[in-house]
Amino acid sequence: MTIYNFSAGPAVLPKEVLQQAQAEMLDWHGSGMSVMEMSHRGKEFMGIAAEAEADLRELMAIPANYKVLFLQGGASQQFAMIPMNLLRGKASADYLNTGEWSKKAISEAKKYGAVNVVATSADKNFSYVPDFSAWRCDADAAYLHFTPNETIGGVEFNWLPDAGSVPLVADMSSCILSRPIDVSKYGLIYAGAQKNIGPAGLTIVIVREDLIGEVVAGTPTMLDYKTHADNDSMYNTPPTYGIYIAGLVFKMLKRNGGIAAMEQTNIAKANLLYAAIDASNGFYNCPVAIDNRSRMNIPFTLKDAALDGAFVKQAEARGLLQLKGHRSVGGMRASIYNAMPLAGVAALVEFMNEFAANNG
Amino acid sequence: MTIYNFSAGPAVLPKEVLQQAQAEMLDWHGSGMSVMEMSHRGKEFMGIAAEAEADLRELMAIPANYKVLFLQGGASQQFAMIPMNLLRGKASADYLNTGEWSKKAISEAKKYGAVNVVATSADKNFSYVPDFSAWRCDADAAYLHFTPNETIGGVEFNWLPDAGSVPLVADMSSCILSRPIDVSKYGLIYAGAQKNIGPAGLTIVIVREDLIGEVVAGTPTMLDYKTHADNDSMYNTPPTYGIYIAGLVFKMLKRNGGIAAMEQTNIAKANLLYAAIDASNGFYNCPVAIDNRSRMNIPFTLKDAALDGAFVKQAEARGLLQLKGHRSVGGMRASIYNAMPLAGVAALVEFMNEFAANNG
Repeated sequence: MTIYNFSAGPAVLPKEVLQQAQAEMLDWHGSGMSVMEMSHRGKEFMGIAAEAEADLRELMAIPANYKVLFLQGGASQQFAMIPMNLLRGKASADYLNTGEWSKKAISEAKKYGAVNVVATSADKNFSYVPDFSAWRCDADAAYLHFTPNETIGGVEFNWLPDAGSVPLVADMSSCILSRPIDVSKYGLIYAGAQKNIGPAGLTIVIVREDLIGEVVAGTPTMLDYKTHADNDSMYNTPPTYGIYIAGLVFKMLKRNGGIAAMEQTNIAKANLLYAAIDASNGFYNCPVAIDNRSRMNIPFTLKDAALDGAFVKQAEARGLLQLKGHRSVGGMRASIYNAMPLAGVAALVEFMNEFAANNG
Repeated sequence: MTIYNFSAGPAVLPKEVLQQAQAEMLDWHGSGMSVMEMSHRGKEFMGIAAEAEADLRELMAIPANYKVLFLQGGASQQFAMIPMNLLRGKASADYLNTGEWSKKAISEAKKYGAVNVVATSADKNFSYVPDFSAWRCDADAAYLHFTPNETIGGVEFNWLPDAGSVPLVADMSSCILSRPIDVSKYGLIYAGAQKNIGPAGLTIVIVREDLIGEVVAGTPTMLDYKTHADNDSMYNTPPTYGIYIAGLVFKMLKRNGGIAAMEQTNIAKANLLYAAIDASNGFYNCPVAIDNRSRMNIPFTLKDAALDGAFVKQAEARGLLQLKGHRSVGGMRASIYNAMPLAGVAALVEFMNEFAANNG
């Protein structure tokens, strides 16, 4: 039975990447070593890391005045590192609140300075992106933080806020590499790897160089971007195997047309699933405003929540895994990151249609 | 050619562990998923993590009033987390200085409180452990920090400081699981995984419960042990694949007689290498005091440093890798952690004897 894993993260990885990792597990390129066994300062791993960075720079067209950092601790650690590094003497930072991950970022930032919430979608249970005309931005804010894709709520931006000279900071954990973006419009982009990049335990930060180097007093050395920027992410031992797998994912993306091609597949996958939801005569419902529906994380409820258990169980019996929704939203959630093939979404839609016919 | 990798870390892993990881890479136990693809909150990975913790508790006989935490950031991040969490209102902490890693721990701790250096071996280039009678301990210190094995200097404790009621904190990155210890004598033990445990990117902390829960103001949520202790290391996504590999290493240790058996092999390996150095009539020299010689990291110099390059090159040609010493010590360093087989040390000794005969 073919398995399709709709987990929100850690999530499905490209099969060809796992196959290559399997083949190289005991002996990378004739070195006699697993990548896991390599000194991070040896020529073999230094080459792997340099190539991963170069490929990511090429895929995302990252300008030369941005550093690419391979860190640890996930987005949750970035929630502290961002204010610690980017407040830079300013009294406050702007944050948009569009859901669970925005809220966590805001809560942590308050430890280090004032937070001005420019807008919130709390009034409609975080099911939309507030119109930019309603944002109350502070022209003197240290930065403006937003979450382009809320993994839990399934709310995604399809436009870019214009913060003027205020650096834009984006948590792209669940949408990085899923569509082309203009990196030069951002001050800092961060992403946990375990959705669109590679294994959990690797965090990627892309930061404009002029924002590095002025931390809040008491910032740990390891939480200062300068520590890692000055040492090419080798101040201490980085998560070497995660960097290696991420590098294989980058190569796979390059072989397959890059991010622009990936976006086309992602649009096709999302359209297929949303169309099935919308054509179900209300048997399924997606609570998110149509313009803000995520291409990556698609939450939906069943008309009769008493059927949720049967839906999950029957889906699992068909190899459609991890569809149970987050406890804060309920219902179901299908995460369909880059590595989810169109065939996986088609199999899900086929099952959903049958389930609706049998239980409608 | 058989490869023996003497890297100080990331370092050699047990072959049977890599083989199992290879076999399970695309399909863990019939789940249809790689461990890398599993939700950390799914039953499969929850089981893997619980088993890894249980096995580590059994191997080290960790008492019930200690938490085992699977974290990120390496020892370098612990250098900040320890004072942030363990100062607990006290003005200062005691630190022993026996080398490079002690110095880094001391430097970071000074950001958060006063540091009382109880003793140092700087007078002899960190080549010994100061006698306990010379330590100037503070009975009111928040804790006493020491480095039982200095990875760079190759200096190891073979006794345990008695700090009275002051909690003992130990950086065991390069000696954990290499010999039996009495965990109940410690307040906190920490170790980066990439030497004796598993892949880089996983950090293990074993901490007495009563020391958790009172952090310095401004401590990031992710740097508070309580965050992780209260959530069984699942506050956010942990480094799942690293935990899985560590779990395989723990199972391998259990199958092979546990830590007591491992210690016997480690003694045999270290004795073999030190005997060769000491029998070389000064061709090779280990700068460390005999009583404090590490079983894990064995630095040695050649009488004629002009031969260093030839030594490294000829060793590599025989499959003996990563023998170049740390830049701060020079010469050579052979790291012979748990996963280095006795045959690897024997091969190194054979080469060293030949090299000395050819160049003496």
